[in-house]
Amino acid sequence: MIPQDFIQRMPFLVRPRNIAHYENGKVYILDRRVYPFETRFVECVSYEEVACAIEDMVTQSLGPAYAAACGMILAAKQGENKKEHDLLNYLEKAAYRIIHTRPTNHEIRDTVLGSMAFFKTHYMDKNRSGEELFQEYLDWMITKRHHDSMNLGRFGASVLQDGDTILTHCWPETTLIYTVMEALQQGKKIKAYCGETRPYLQGSRLTATALLHMGISVTVITDNMPATLLAQGKIQVFLAGSDRTTLDGHVINKVGTLQIAICAKHFQVPFYAFAYGPDSQAKTPRDVPIEDRNPTEVLQIRGLPTASPKATAVYPAFDITPPEFITGIITDKGVYSPEQIGDYLIKP
Amino acid sequence: MIPQDFIQRMPFLVRPRNIAHYENGKVYILDRRVYPFETRFVECVSYEEVACAIEDMVTQSLGPAYAAACGMILAAKQGENKKEHDLLNYLEKAAYRIIHTRPTNHEIRDTVLGSMAFFKTHYMDKNRSGEELFQEYLDWMITKRHHDSMNLGRFGASVLQDGDTILTHCWPETTLIYTVMEALQQGKKIKAYCGETRPYLQGSRLTATALLHMGISVTVITDNMPATLLAQGKIQVFLAGSDRTTLDGHVINKVGTLQIAICAKHFQVPFYAFAYGPDSQAKTPRDVPIEDRNPTEVLQIRGLPTASPKATAVYPAFDITPPEFITGIITDKGVYSPEQIGDYLIKP
Repeated sequence: MIPQDFIQRMPFLVRPRNIAHYENGKVYILDRRVYPFETRFVECVSYEEVACAIEDMVTQSLGPAYAAACGMILAAKQGENKKEHDLLNYLEKAAYRIIHTRPTNHEIRDTVLGSMAFFKTHYMDKNRSGEELFQEYLDWMITKRHHDSMNLGRFGASVLQDGDTILTHCWPETTLIYTVMEALQQGKKIKAYCGETRPYLQGSRLTATALLHMGISVTVITDNMPATLLAQGKIQVFLAGSDRTTLDGHVINKVGTLQIAICAKHFQVPFYAFAYGPDSQAKTPRDVPIEDRNPTEVLQIRGLPTASPKATAVYPAFDITPPEFITGIITDKGVYSPEQIGDYLIKP
Repeated sequence: MIPQDFIQRMPFLVRPRNIAHYENGKVYILDRRVYPFETRFVECVSYEEVACAIEDMVTQSLGPAYAAACGMILAAKQGENKKEHDLLNYLEKAAYRIIHTRPTNHEIRDTVLGSMAFFKTHYMDKNRSGEELFQEYLDWMITKRHHDSMNLGRFGASVLQDGDTILTHCWPETTLIYTVMEALQQGKKIKAYCGETRPYLQGSRLTATALLHMGISVTVITDNMPATLLAQGKIQVFLAGSDRTTLDGHVINKVGTLQIAICAKHFQVPFYAFAYGPDSQAKTPRDVPIEDRNPTEVLQIRGLPTASPKATAVYPAFDITPPEFITGIITDKGVYSPEQIGDYLIKP
């Protein structure tokens, strides 16, 4: 469990219950598409609705892993009257459906497979229902994520100097927040430029709001401004998440990470990516499916058309930043050079 | 004058009368802030209103030069009953006001000073009113711009190969359009990615609409995608305008040009900037004021909030691309390397 006083210090957005939670046969997912303009939860009454919500990007970054874990609790509840063999089949189907919502980040897969393994190991003793077991797995995951994030935050804070201005891209969730919380605890003053991150504006809405909650001075910029500010010497470090880190040191993250990383290197500003380790199943970027999302998302903003009505669009949701542009990868086990990130897996 | 059949082939947006025109004591400026969602003209009944419209970015790119020329016609009309000396003072005041609307692009200054010189030279003969003289200057400017653009378009088309996919940033007005018109005349097939260009979306609204009018296949992308597409080999050439080109070969253009240029060089894709020559008064970027616009423009899109309500923002409207990232500068006198752009001024 996360200590209550720590939760109080966390920005609203990263408190686990706010990301997604299960209660009485329903899953509630904070609708990050409209936050902070509206604070509302999407209610799902079936694992299929949870899967659709993940596909529709009701939540993103690490949110889908939480939603997926909740979706498995709900699936167990939905199947509670089935016989053992049928329940297992039903849960395997739910797991498959939820894993295949979004392909690029591996946390959904790892969470669902982890919860299924936990269920299979413990279901035999019959003392607890499937619903209880999957909830137990979620609780364990939240505690582990907190523990890992505390470690990651310490390593993250170690690369920040008092007085630094950071540049962020998209919404790196707990990784960035624990890093900044730790830096603040250490008495370091930090300012932030948040790139807005079209088309969903995760940077200007989510990252900006979370950092402001923590008392950080936040300046929002559009996605065409990073190099301009780097050239002006206004940024000391570029920080972004990594939706998937390959064993050969590539960072696959929200589209736009690559061009900022290229420019940061040109202006000799370090780029650190956050990751709870590399994906052991991804040796190189060739092992990672890069999601192409619905292009119409690029042609509007919050429902308002932003482009010529006859134009088409593309929406590659992620891009691949090669090791040469990465100063280090900040994990819960230390800061690794991209070339050494595979060592994460053998370190206890 | 531009031949009528040529005007018919031009996209709506670049037909001179649509950019801005003067008629019966009023200046009409196409409101590019809402085009193509709405086609409406802002009506100005005084040169002060024209100046405010330019400041408010009712029009941009080369539009302000046209609006400025129209504003001077209107100033002459407003001052028509003044005695010669008073009229001259009045016009000098109007010229000063209009020149100081937006500082970075030098076309406003050059147009207003040019029209004043023309007026002073010809006013003595008393055959024509100030209103007529400034209109005559605008007509001459339109004809000259057409002539220069035809030349520029030929040089621009020379860097395009049949089958090329171009990447554009912001809205480079006549330079891009004459280039593409000439390439099409030469039978070259061209496709385009248009970067949307936050916060005003000039790329997704204006450039995309104009290219679509010409039958070009247009794909809109957000400002965080150029490097991703460059990495995928999908772009053969990056084309952008240059709001001011310094004699030492720097291109000062809409914010975002710099980071695309850096990435284009990394991926060995040529970057050509368009300019009707360098500014003879700007030896280096230190001679050019870079406009910082109202940061609230970054926090909304078409009036809809896009960022955390408590966030601040910055809006550097332009950035400076050094010569090392520029393959060539396409002008009406030829394609110059950035180092040689000063030669433009001595070439007849």
